Formats: sequence, C-alpha cells, structure tokens
Amino acid sequence: MNLKIAVLPGDGIGPEVILQAKKALYAIAEVYNHEFVFEDALMGAVAIDKTGSPLPEQTLNLCLNTDAVLLGAIGDPKYDNNPNAKVRPEQGLLKLRKELGLFANIRPIKPYKALIEASPLKREIIEGADFTIFRELTGGAYFGAKTLNEEGTHASDLCEYSEEEITRIAHLAFKSAQKRRKKLTMVDKANVLETSRLWRKVVQKVSENYPDVKLDFLFVDNAAMQLILNPKQFDVILTENLFGDILSDEASVITGSIGLLPSVSLGEKNALFEPIHGSYPQAKGKNIANPIASILAAALLLEHFGLTKEAHVVYKAVEKAIEYKVVTVDLKPDSKFGTNEVGEFISNFI
Amino acid sequence: MNLKIAVLPGDGIGPEVILQAKKALYAIAEVYNHEFVFEDALMGAVAIDKTGSPLPEQTLNLCLNTDAVLLGAIGDPKYDNNPNAKVRPEQGLLKLRKELGLFANIRPIKPYKALIEASPLKREIIEGADFTIFRELTGGAYFGAKTLNEEGTHASDLCEYSEEEITRIAHLAFKSAQKRRKKLTMVDKANVLETSRLWRKVVQKVSENYPDVKLDFLFVDNAAMQLILNPKQFDVILTENLFGDILSDEASVITGSIGLLPSVSLGEKNALFEPIHGSYPQAKGKNIANPIASILAAALLLEHFGLTKEAHVVYKAVEKAIEYKVVTVDLKPDSKFGTNEVGEFISNFI
Ligand SMILES: CC(C)[C@H](C(=O)O)[C@@H](O)C(=O)O
Ligand SMILES: CC(C)[C@H](C(=O)O)[C@@H](O)C(=O)O
Repeated sequence: MNLKIAVLPGDGIGPEVILQAKKALYAIAEVYNHEFVFEDALMGAVAIDKTGSPLPEQTLNLCLNTDAVLLGAIGDPKYDNNPNAKVRPEQGLLKLRKELGLFANIRPIKPYKALIEASPLKREIIEGADFTIFRELTGGAYFGAKTLNEEGTHASDLCEYSEEEITRIAHLAFKSAQKRRKKLTMVDKANVLETSRLWRKVVQKVSENYPDVKLDFLFVDNAAMQLILNPKQFDVILTENLFGDILSDEASVITGSIGLLPSVSLGEKNALFEPIHGSYPQAKGKNIANPIASILAAALLLEHFGLTKEAHVVYKAVEKAIEYKVVTVDLKPDSKFGTNEVGEFISNFI
Repeated sequence: MNLKIAVLPGDGIGPEVILQAKKALYAIAEVYNHEFVFEDALMGAVAIDKTGSPLPEQTLNLCLNTDAVLLGAIGDPKYDNNPNAKVRPEQGLLKLRKELGLFANIRPIKPYKALIEASPLKREIIEGADFTIFRELTGGAYFGAKTLNEEGTHASDLCEYSEEEITRIAHLAFKSAQKRRKKLTMVDKANVLETSRLWRKVVQKVSENYPDVKLDFLFVDNAAMQLILNPKQFDVILTENLFGDILSDEASVITGSIGLLPSVSLGEKNALFEPIHGSYPQAKGKNIANPIASILAAALLLEHFGLTKEAHVVYKAVEKAIEYKVVTVDLKPDSKFGTNEVGEFISNFI
C-alpha cells in the first residue's frame, strides 16, 4: 500500500515521540512491502515562533491532501500563563480539527495485563475493563462565540450543538457498540444544560436504528465517579467535546499512564492520529517521554487503512516491550530505558 | 444557642437521610442545651407534584428568613428522561442557590482511616490526602442564557463570568488555604475558554493579597487525571461551577463512598448544608441509604455557627460508627445495618 502521511511533530516532547512512531512505520513498510511517504510540517507553538501562525496555510494544505495526519503534541506554558496572548498553539489544533472536519475523537481504554499494577486503581477494579470513548470534536464550547468586554472584566463562551452534529457521531458510536458488547452510555448534564437535553433527544432518536444496542444515560458528574468506581460497566461512551476532553484524560488512569494511549480523530474524508498526552514541556529533550502512545497511534493508522495484520504486529511489539519492562520511567521509576531505547526495541521487534 | 433551621428533605432518599441528620442535631441540642427549631418545606420533584413549582414561594421565604438551610437531595428520573419537560426539580435548587446568593460551594475531601480499603484507589495513593474544593455556584453555564430553536434542532448554553463573581470566591479560597497548607490550585481550561482566561487573570490578581499562598494552575482535563494519580498534591482547589460539579463528585471516590461527603454552600448572609450525593431514587424507602453525609452536613452546620465542640462530637460519633462497622451496605456489602440503625447509633453516641 502507498500512503502519504503528514507529520506534525509539534511542541515539547512531540518531536521525540513522533520520531519513534515513524521508526515503527518504517519498519512495517520494510517488512510488509508498503510505501509510506512522510512529510513534516509545522503546527503549534513551534509554528507561531517560525511563522506567526499556529497553523500555517502550507500545513493545512498538506493535511488536506494526504491520506492521514500523524500528530505529536502541541502547547507551551508561555502561552498558558499569559491570559492576554492573542495567538495560541491550541488555536492551530482546533482550526485543523475544524478544517479537516474531524468530528469524532475515538479513544480506546484497556489496561495491559503486565501493567495492571501501574494503575492507582486496585486490580479488581480495572482488570477486564475495556471501553471506548467517542468524543464530539468540532462543536460545543470549543468553537462557540467567545466574548471579553473592553475593560476585561466580563467573559463568555457559547456552547452550541445542532441535531446534525450529534446525529453523525451518534451513528459512529452505535456502530462501534454493535461490534462490541452492544451497550452505549450517553454522558451529559441534561438536568441543567439545554445542549445536553438536545443530545439526549437526538441520541434517543438515532438509537431506534440500533435496537440491539442498549442505551443508557449518565450525568457527567456521576460518570466522572463511575469511571473510577466501576469502569467495567462501560462499553461505548458517547459525549460532547468538553466532557469528552475531561473524561478521556480521567479514564487514562485506568491504564496506569497517559503515555500509553492513542486516539484517532475522524472526519468524512480525513483522519488524524495522535497520542492523547500533551506536550509535556518539562520533559522535552530529556529522552524520558513515553513513545508508546505515539507508536500505538501509528498502529491505529495502520488499522484505519485495513492493515490489520501490520497493526497487530505493532501491538505485539508494544506488549513485548511492556512484558520485558523495556519502558520509560513513568511506568517503571528506576527504568534505564529512554524514549529512544523503547522506540528502538519496538521497531526492532517488528 | 438558638437556631432556626429550614429543612428541605427533597426527593428520593432525601427525607430518610435528613431525618437522621435531624436526630443528631436534636441529640446535640439536648446534651449542650441549645434550641434548634426545624421547619420543613417542599423543594424538588415533591414540590412540583404538590404545588407545580420546584421551589414554592413559601419555601424560598422560609429559607431567606432562617439561620441555615439543611437540604436532603433532589431529582427524579421521570424528568431526566423527558427532554421536553418544562419544569424540573433541579430548577428549584438552582433558583434557591441564586436567590440566597450561595456563590461558594465547599467540599472537604479526606479519607477515613477505617475506610481506606473501601476506596477503589490504592492505599498508598489516598492515605494522607486532605483537600478542599471551592466550587463557584451561582455563575457559569448553569445560569447563562439557554436557547432551543423552534424546530428543536439547535440548542445553546452560555457560560458567563464577571471579575466580581470570581474575586469573591477567590478570596474565600485563599483565606482557607492560608489556614491549611498554603497551596491553591486553580483549575480551568484557559487554553480554550475565554471565561477560563478571565478566571486565571482575576485569580492571579487576587493572589497578590496572599503572598504566603502558593498558586498554581491546572487544565481541567489534567486535573481530572491528577485527582486520581496523586490526590495528595492538592490543598485547596478553586474552580468554576461545572468543572467543580464534575471534579467534586470524582474526588468522592477517594473516600470510598459518595455517601460520606457533605458540603456547605455559602453566601453573604445565608448558608446551606447538604450531602453531596443525589436523590438515589432506586434506594428510596429501602432503609439502605447512607445517612452519614447528611449527618456530617449537620456537623458542618454546627461548625459554621461556631459550635466547634459540638461539631467535633458528631465527627467522633461518625468515626465510631465507621470503626465499629455500624455502616450501610455501600461501605460493607454484607452489612445488617440500615439508614435508621446507623443514624440511631450515631445520635445515641452523642
Ligand atoms: C490541547 C487541547 C486544546 C486539547 C483539547 O482540549 O481538545 C487536548 O486537551 C486534547 O484533548 O486533545
Ligand atoms: C442536582 C444538580 C443540579 C446539582 C448540580 O449539578 O449542581 C448536583 O449535581 C450538585 O452537585 O449539587
């Protein structure tokens, strides 16, 4: 297979972890005779520094014209602590999501057997947990109108949703549930928010097309609790943008490290693959960041293009690294292996 | 001391657990020679059923003219699953918060030694955790304008904040931090939301009055993760309404049961005390609901009026119940004790 892949290493540890993902893909290409062409481009703080824009036109055009996008991470504390910054790295990512129409972010959560002990949760709570979060990604408060009055004393964010935006991701989530354990949990705050009530109504309507899937509802405050009390109750979770942001990071604790989790963002035509962790600037250049989430993002990419066998080989290689404890310090505090060594082990294993 | 207390038992298990809180307060009044006068009133689904309104005028007037309000819980699934319901129990609670000006909701989180094993988190993660969440309670998306178009296909919620709303709760939170371990963590989503950037700016400004308190910032997605990975890092958490709703329920897992946590909501003149759990309609009338959160809400009430010794006696009685395993099934699956027995044990111990 020929694939053209746009690579956006981004900020902080982004470049180091993405390098390892590329190595894994190169190894797959060699062994299985594929041709993967990578083209790097700027996004995030690094793009602001070099071009003034967090998502330069050139990067956007590249992403629109490739088969897939592989993203590292973006974000820089110098923008976070400056409430007056006019341009921010995150705007690049949000604009990219919007322009590529990546309306569904999908994050599978499943602990590794060899890592059960790495979780802050007890073994009996997480063993057997296996669910997927469908987060709406191009709507809600992320994209609604924002205001700040002239005196800088009053601000607002508008959260908006339309039936259409809810319907399209609901179908994806129900289809996924059909292939899994046939349960879908809608998470909202319908006792307070109008948008949540719309979500509930639309999802109820969509559910009529999937009579084999059991649909239930949880308020987001309760869901944040249930994820920790009893994660095994979940199969597919469907929720809006901001709730999904919070719950999917929270759910990462089940696997012991956020450094293990990839996600895919899907649109009608485009797909973006990334680790769910941030740019972790404190670790930049120290060869301590966990590359596994990025390598698994690459595996999701392979799966997306039907290269199931190849994806499986990557999963196996990751499992071996974990089993042999060739992991970074987030998983084994006294580990002698760094980003590079873990990535090397995995691509050699392929 | 003479205290006039408005009691709103509410829906579901509300009346049963509130009864136990009253028993504890009666016991305190008798032993320490206070006069507590209780007046019950309607709020929630029960008020809708009887009067058509979730917060009848009479209830509001009573609450405005008492020293304190003791609330059970409100909410009923018949409203949750009906996105078209015009009147909802939650409107009563939100209106009460607004009318009493209860702008700060304060939830202390600290695991009981005897219950460390009841938490889904490992002992080493939670032992020693001790923090308080300050949640803004009368602003944000809870109270902003809501819209639903005529066709019912597009909805919106507006999240708004003003400098003033942020300043007043920030002062409370900083003052609390000064009496504790002198650390305040502001939780927001300043990389995306305009209101969060206003929060960050205002809190930074307020912090200049409290040079002895260390201020740091966390994005809400990261905070949802850090609460579970390392809850001991927190001392005082300050956040807006919706994030506070999610995080404080999530944080309840640290104590093993949401049935153990009370909260107080403060305004300039009024104070409301309640368990943080919901109305748990499935348990209604079964004598299985945990009354401890409500009894601890009563203890917070005593503390609020300077009755520190009395509050302490209630805390001790609760600790004894836990130590002797006189607890409900949420804490001990094979327990033979119900709501009544636990409440009885505690008030007898006073
Ligand atoms: C960087 C930030 C804007 C982003 C988000 O909130 O969507 C991140 O947290 C994520 O989840 O991908
Ligand atoms: C019942 C509901 C409206 C309420 C809220 O969201 O504030 C509850 O969850 C709480 O935290 O007190």
